[in-house]
Amino acid sequence: MTRLTATYLVHDKKQDLVKKAESIALGLTIGSWTELPLLIQEQLKLHKGEVVEVIELDEDPEANQYLGGTRTRGLLKIAYPTANFSHDLPAILTTVFGKLSLDGEVKLVDLHFSDEHLSFYPGPKYGIRGVREKVRVTDRPLLMSIFKSVIGRDLDYFQEQLRLQALGGIDLVKDDEILFDNPLTPWEDRVRTAVKVLREAESLTGEKTLYAVNITGRSSQLRDRARKAVELGASALLFNVFTYGLDILQELAEDPEVAVPILAHPAFSGAFTSSAFYGLSHSLALGTLLRVAGADLSLFPSPYGSVVLEKGETLRIAHSLRTDQLALRPAFPVPSAGIHPGIVPRLIQDFGMDSVINAGGGVHGHPSGTVAGGKAFRQAIEVVLAGKTLSEVASDTKYTELNQAIALWGGE
Amino acid sequence: MTRLTATYLVHDKKQDLVKKAESIALGLTIGSWTELPLLIQEQLKLHKGEVVEVIELDEDPEANQYLGGTRTRGLLKIAYPTANFSHDLPAILTTVFGKLSLDGEVKLVDLHFSDEHLSFYPGPKYGIRGVREKVRVTDRPLLMSIFKSVIGRDLDYFQEQLRLQALGGIDLVKDDEILFDNPLTPWEDRVRTAVKVLREAESLTGEKTLYAVNITGRSSQLRDRARKAVELGASALLFNVFTYGLDILQELAEDPEVAVPILAHPAFSGAFTSSAFYGLSHSLALGTLLRVAGADLSLFPSPYGSVVLEKGETLRIAHSLRTDQLALRPAFPVPSAGIHPGIVPRLIQDFGMDSVINAGGGVHGHPSGTVAGGKAFRQAIEVVLAGKTLSEVASDTKYTELNQAIALWGGE
Repeated sequence: MTRLTATYLVHDKKQDLVKKAESIALGLTIGSWTELPLLIQEQLKLHKGEVVEVIELDEDPEANQYLGGTRTRGLLKIAYPTANFSHDLPAILTTVFGKLSLDGEVKLVDLHFSDEHLSFYPGPKYGIRGVREKVRVTDRPLLMSIFKSVIGRDLDYFQEQLRLQALGGIDLVKDDEILFDNPLTPWEDRVRTAVKVLREAESLTGEKTLYAVNITGRSSQLRDRARKAVELGASALLFNVFTYGLDILQELAEDPEVAVPILAHPAFSGAFTSSAFYGLSHSLALGTLLRVAGADLSLFPSPYGSVVLEKGETLRIAHSLRTDQLALRPAFPVPSAGIHPGIVPRLIQDFGMDSVINAGGGVHGHPSGTVAGGKAFRQAIEVVLAGKTLSEVASDTKYTELNQAIALWGGE
Repeated sequence: MTRLTATYLVHDKKQDLVKKAESIALGLTIGSWTELPLLIQEQLKLHKGEVVEVIELDEDPEANQYLGGTRTRGLLKIAYPTANFSHDLPAILTTVFGKLSLDGEVKLVDLHFSDEHLSFYPGPKYGIRGVREKVRVTDRPLLMSIFKSVIGRDLDYFQEQLRLQALGGIDLVKDDEILFDNPLTPWEDRVRTAVKVLREAESLTGEKTLYAVNITGRSSQLRDRARKAVELGASALLFNVFTYGLDILQELAEDPEVAVPILAHPAFSGAFTSSAFYGLSHSLALGTLLRVAGADLSLFPSPYGSVVLEKGETLRIAHSLRTDQLALRPAFPVPSAGIHPGIVPRLIQDFGMDSVINAGGGVHGHPSGTVAGGKAFRQAIEVVLAGKTLSEVASDTKYTELNQAIALWGGE
């Protein structure tokens, strides 16, 4: 019998966590047990949820104070027979955290998929290796940047920004997540323009830059739009998965005609990951679930900027995206916001080679402009991978753009 | 210029809420303003978010203590030009609460749609009046019940439970939200069985009972399954909207071939409505947004049971579903869990005639069984609408089932 194991963090009003766990295991599967006739028990055995482990944790005085009473804190691990649900993420989430999400201080912190069960979830179509092949870069973290304020601007503005980013040596340029289809820069025209601009840039730099177009619109349009985008030459897709649904991401990822990597944007995810008491853990939402649903890259708030996530949380997201404990292709972690060239040593130390360095203001805000902004990042990566500190190259004229950036934003 | 106004509750680290509001209004639209050349300002004016109102609220000492420092509490109202996004709920949520959901203690508590903007959102296809027509009941709250523990059970069990509920006078019987398509009770067979059983019951009772089948599976299958369900004779659909996506609900609701009412289940919504600091308000998630997306009925935790929502919250949900301030058909509020016949007077007082009384254990757990359970509720409704209290009929043999229920669960 294949089972899916869910781990919950609870702050429970009652003391007996084992009883709590048992009531969840039954309540979310067959409903009742001890009062059933033996024959019915036999029949329902294969559908019964099982408590795998109950770990009582130390009390949290601050939580107690805020919640207005002593709470028993603990981790409950419950195994659900996969025979109980169809093979789709909505069915899983409804089972393990449907009604339960409404039932007091319960947070779903982890899901463990067995290898057998994972056969229904192909995961990332490209993953880290496949994305690297697309940009022909195997030996360093990738560099990503975003457009700056494109709402209300026309195609010329879009085109010029894209050109500068490509010339600056950016591997992957993504649409702003709040840029939808619009009369000034219709999405098909953005893709067509990008194809032209990026081909020209490649002829100058010899390097490949991918453009991730924001796939938006009504749910039932998305597949055709994604296919059309690929047909027109889009080299990646950006997708606001949490305002649509994980299953829609999975359908895009599974579609062989959507033959480009998918970047999952974390928009709206803070609504259900921010609380210590409720919702999903960051590593489950932005790590495991996105990987299972097939994202090739997952963006999440870096621990360095103003929109921050605590560092441990970001490392757990990165771990979930790349661990070989999950029998799917690993996906790229993309810690975002607050990134400038001076942060690169820390980024590489924290997130490693198989990560994406993603900047907005840190590229466009460079004193010598966007091209220099891209170069400064590439130089920072080069310096770090050569085993040097940024200060060692402070007077090296080979690294002018980097040193300009450090003069403005600092560096380590 | 049409605008959509979002209201946020913030617990901000800084004191200046006006500045905070302005930075949100710009950051989620055109990015910057004062440093732009006048010509560009002119061009972007139509896309600029505007602060409508900033209301500072009293400090919350408990929140301060828990968050570890003094927070400025307040409501920020920001108007977003609808020209900035395409006409779909994912675009709206990404704009008004995409990145912002990740940015500290910010909760999206309300969205105000202008009538003009609402023309893109047809809302409930049936609404309260349409559902009433389907069950031919105009003069009382409707009565709904759910199946009890159907996982691992066969069609005979399903059929018998449905028959008893219909004979008990239930208007609407819904699938359990964790019952997916499965070999024992495939969804098509459930619908076919229901058609037969409910026709037989109607010939005995003269009353109409709707069966809401749980529409599940992969996102792209849902439309065809919903249409097929209607073709096979399903009289309503249950939909776990929050594990799929609001836009998918909207697509089902907009489909003229899906010619039955849709019940939106709140499964998973607690993940983003439970916190006082983050996510969405209950009334927005389970009220306004479901109505805009086209739910005919919205289930939510009642204020009476063990899985409870605070009463004020439930009344605000009901208000959002029915207010004529929103130019869409009103939808039925369905306060659920902890409902037994003795609660009916309070339910009708709190939620009024245009609500649905929904019970599980309160029907099936009746001392004389499921049929008596349904009758007890119908009797309770009759007594309340006749202007009597339950104790006034305590010795009336016309109300045997009701009095049995009150003896077991109490009553007012």
